[in-house]
Amino acid sequence: MTPIGYVRSPYTDTSQVPKGLGAKHDAEGELEILPEYEAGLTDIEGFSHLIVVWVFDRSGAAELCGKVPSDDSRPHGVFATRSPRRPNPIALTAVELLGREGRRLRVRGIDMLDGTPILDIKPYLSSIPEEKLRRGWLAEQRKLSAFSHQLSVTSLRPDKRQRRSTIAR
Amino acid sequence: MTPIGYVRSPYTDTSQVPKGLGAKHDAEGELEILPEYEAGLTDIEGFSHLIVVWVFDRSGAAELCGKVPSDDSRPHGVFATRSPRRPNPIALTAVELLGREGRRLRVRGIDMLDGTPILDIKPYLSSIPEEKLRRGWLAEQRKLSAFSHQLSVTSLRPDKRQRRSTIAR
Repeated sequence: MTPIGYVRSPYTDTSQVPKGLGAKHDAEGELEILPEYEAGLTDIEGFSHLIVVWVFDRSGAAELCGKVPSDDSRPHGVFATRSPRRPNPIALTAVELLGREGRRLRVRGIDMLDGTPILDIKPYLSSIPEEKLRRGWLAEQRKLSAFSHQLSVTSLRPDKRQRRSTIAR
Repeated sequence: MTPIGYVRSPYTDTSQVPKGLGAKHDAEGELEILPEYEAGLTDIEGFSHLIVVWVFDRSGAAELCGKVPSDDSRPHGVFATRSPRRPNPIALTAVELLGREGRRLRVRGIDMLDGTPILDIKPYLSSIPEEKLRRGWLAEQRKLSAFSHQLSVTSLRPDKRQRRSTIAR
């Protein structure tokens, strides 16, 4: 495996990258492909979205079962998380292609650090429909955090309980 | 990079795997994870869909710009295709998780050959909505094939032209 290019990102430290299910990834950046791979970009402009395959090049040792920032209640298996501490430190990000200038692809939806090595780029072709997705512990976690948000709000404003619980749902 | 497991698939030759945009991938098979990585599967049962990261272990040398089976009219850059002949021979497949027995995951949507090495498994968390996707040359190609299908059908059955063209659209 050898990099085909590198990410140009506004993020230089993992603490700057939004994390967790539902985190907004609006950051713009560039996929800078090495000159020797430029021919591989032919016709890429026609696709609205791309999948970037990249390397977690600054992650710690693999951890098969551990806690993640989005849920500190119990550990999860690494293959049930997006944790960077994986046996093979490969990451995937779906980005929106904003434009191309030669071997530079301007994209939105960056969640990589600046200088991250890119292994591959693929066109994003199809999706599993939203209504067919189950998200296991992550969905539980989201329900819990909505619930605790609701609790904290309603305990402060008991008169608004009904309206708040509707919003939280 | 080292395999975390292997695919058990009904396909033993690439000619058996459905190809092209819109190809149905209903084949069932197993992701057989090696014993030393089983702990990484903890909690995976809660997810309906997984992304499997695997190796094109029987593909030819990389080809930066070449023709693909779904369009023999002109070559496309490898990063604008799902061709197996990539600089880094990494493949992605979204599968539906049907069940787990220990370190064996029963899945639907297999498009790998039997014995394919698996590098990683990630939960499928979110999708780009269908209406936001543009598919470049692949969409052109689909329109063309729908159009030529329409032509061949209407030339045989001129009386049904109006109805057929509605269907083809």
